Amino acid sequence: MASAPKANAIVSQSGGPTGVINASLVGVIEEAKKHPEIQNLYGAIHAVSGIVKENFVDLMKVSKDELEVTAVSPSSALGSSRDKPDAAYCQKILDVFKKRDIRYFFYIGGNDSANTCHIINNMAIEAKYELRAYHVPKTIDNDLLVTDHCPGFGTAAKFVSCALMGDDLDNRALPGIKIDVIMGRHAGFLTAAAALGKQRDDDGPHLIYMPERPVTMDKFLADIDAVYTKLGRCVIAVSEGMSDVDHKTWAEKITETNERDSHGNVQLSGTGALADFLASQVKGKLKIKRVRADTFGYLQRSFAGLQSPVDASEARWCGRQAVQYAMTELNGSVAMKRIGSGKDYKIELFRTELKNVAEKTKSLADEYINKDGNGITQAFVDYALPLTGGLPKTEYLGNRPKI
Amino acid sequence: MASAPKANAIVSQSGGPTGVINASLVGVIEEAKKHPEIQNLYGAIHAVSGIVKENFVDLMKVSKDELEVTAVSPSSALGSSRDKPDAAYCQKILDVFKKRDIRYFFYIGGNDSANTCHIINNMAIEAKYELRAYHVPKTIDNDLLVTDHCPGFGTAAKFVSCALMGDDLDNRALPGIKIDVIMGRHAGFLTAAAALGKQRDDDGPHLIYMPERPVTMDKFLADIDAVYTKLGRCVIAVSEGMSDVDHKTWAEKITETNERDSHGNVQLSGTGALADFLASQVKGKLKIKRVRADTFGYLQRSFAGLQSPVDASEARWCGRQAVQYAMTELNGSVAMKRIGSGKDYKIELFRTELKNVAEKTKSLADEYINKDGNGITQAFVDYALPLTGGLPKTEYLGNRPKI
Repeated sequence: MASAPKANAIVSQSGGPTGVINASLVGVIEEAKKHPEIQNLYGAIHAVSGIVKENFVDLMKVSKDELEVTAVSPSSALGSSRDKPDAAYCQKILDVFKKRDIRYFFYIGGNDSANTCHIINNMAIEAKYELRAYHVPKTIDNDLLVTDHCPGFGTAAKFVSCALMGDDLDNRALPGIKIDVIMGRHAGFLTAAAALGKQRDDDGPHLIYMPERPVTMDKFLADIDAVYTKLGRCVIAVSEGMSDVDHKTWAEKITETNERDSHGNVQLSGTGALADFLASQVKGKLKIKRVRADTFGYLQRSFAGLQSPVDASEARWCGRQAVQYAMTELNGSVAMKRIGSGKDYKIELFRTELKNVAEKTKSLADEYINKDGNGITQAFVDYALPLTGGLPKTEYLGNRPKI
Repeated sequence: MASAPKANAIVSQSGGPTGVINASLVGVIEEAKKHPEIQNLYGAIHAVSGIVKENFVDLMKVSKDELEVTAVSPSSALGSSRDKPDAAYCQKILDVFKKRDIRYFFYIGGNDSANTCHIINNMAIEAKYELRAYHVPKTIDNDLLVTDHCPGFGTAAKFVSCALMGDDLDNRALPGIKIDVIMGRHAGFLTAAAALGKQRDDDGPHLIYMPERPVTMDKFLADIDAVYTKLGRCVIAVSEGMSDVDHKTWAEKITETNERDSHGNVQLSGTGALADFLASQVKGKLKIKRVRADTFGYLQRSFAGLQSPVDASEARWCGRQAVQYAMTELNGSVAMKRIGSGKDYKIELFRTELKNVAEKTKSLADEYINKDGNGITQAFVDYALPLTGGLPKTEYLGNRPKI
């Protein structure tokens, strides 16, 4: 293996923000400061669009105190972008790297970002430009291949489970139907996390709908009716990406029923349309009076002061490790392997090829979804609960013996 | 003053849950245990409806450990009710009190609950039935008279400000228009709290709309346009109770524009309708592409693990104090007076007459709202920030000097 070049490095953050993507950034910065091979560390503002515009800040100058505040701040401290660079765009990126003598590229993001990193890496090889390109994983959707789980998921899962714990107690206090729409366009991990805080047999969410199990509106309503008949209330967690058995998403069906967007776009996040549609179905067809629906929206990915300590620490470690790998290996993506579970939960990191993570996504495993397709299994709780860093306990007194 | 009777006591929780209404309940229970005058302490499940049905649990039997978990649990551990008892209903309540020899009545709730407490107290006096009736304040809306602020507000304010801190950073990462709809039907306190976490000059929320300052849709859109032109993004906090200058609420206007509820009801919480309506106005009239809207819904009043420590401690104190007052005074409502501000923030409790709190509500003072009616003043920050128990600091690196 060739020794690490003495050159400049660049780091950037891409895609949807998370609660710990800045912890990974700080991991990259603090580790980069330790290696004399890395001379300048550029922070590209707004991801790839900041690279081509050379919109750079000097990350070596961020003080230790500022770094610690950055590490606990939600969202992307360097900004983000939804650009999906094509070959010409990637060529411009490579031109900037050459111009600035950037030979270390750290890109924190999801599978699209891994792909961008992969493309640029291949272009550099072809151009015989020595570049060490590393992808650092992040996504609240938890849908990356190879890694056991993704930095960002544990914190979002903590938010969603704490929200459902509170919401279920709220629904006990003032009973009725409550529908909560949760992020995750194609993967049900975050929606499944709604159940992680359940303590009592009759705790909600009583029903969970994940994109991996398409369901008809009739089945959805029949499920709710059954729970409502038994408990006099029902709390439901629904993925924004739910689809019917014809594989048309529910969100698409709304635009058929109710032409609301003049552009014809189906927008999933940042709108209450799906939640309101489902509530109107329950009201209209089940004739239940108190029906409420909330869409968790951007709160579940960017909320100040609510990190999972496990997630934050792993995210930072992934950032540091990317820089360490770059000192000895040409390119790759950082991944996690679980080497202890339950109370002995523990991970180790390993390097995987960029192509293994690029583009492709993972869904909830069958073993994590119950037989009826409307709930989760203990195996999922065992998998996901440690990632939240533990959840608070709650008490409800209304089930005590009557006097 | 007649000595306290040796008899049974009852406690209940009414109206919308909060993050610390259980802390007040625990305050009542732990103090009641100390006074031999109180023999049984009944917890009425689902407020007044539980009283008339004698749906009671024995609160003397709740262990110290269970009490501590109850105190940190969101929502109402005894359940709640939206019933507004009339005279016949109140007579039934009094009949149950007589039957069970209940002579201490602790009712935790808002102004409607204070009114119920007041009516029952007057009935008892008329019937020459010795009753000590106490109202313990709670509401996330912070709209009760007499008291400096209400238990429940500080915790909800913490949620809303942490949400906006995260959401503003999210909007920096992926710029556009973001509208957040916040609870508070008639009072703008909670919406105003959206700004408590602002650190940087260009931090959002950039615009705040409170029910105390009706505004036309044209002014709303012009305000947003001005901020967007200057910053390239805009984060807006809007109260669910906003009205136009003709005093018709915006929510009512939606049902005019878009007949969505078959019952003709204007529902404010548990629906994304207002947020989506405002987003479509911005999209359609300002021709801005990336417009997102979230409705915070029930998360802002019932979220596990996110109490303001100041709020939780004050709420518990109010519960204890109600029992102490009942040992020496016939009836009343517990209120807070601020006797130190800023770093020396401190309160003391005092007793006020039930009639002073019953029914009436308070709005945001003029000194808390800016001249343009679309933001808050430093006076509001000074008033509200201590109630959150302090907010996390955040860092954004994109404003640093370019290299």
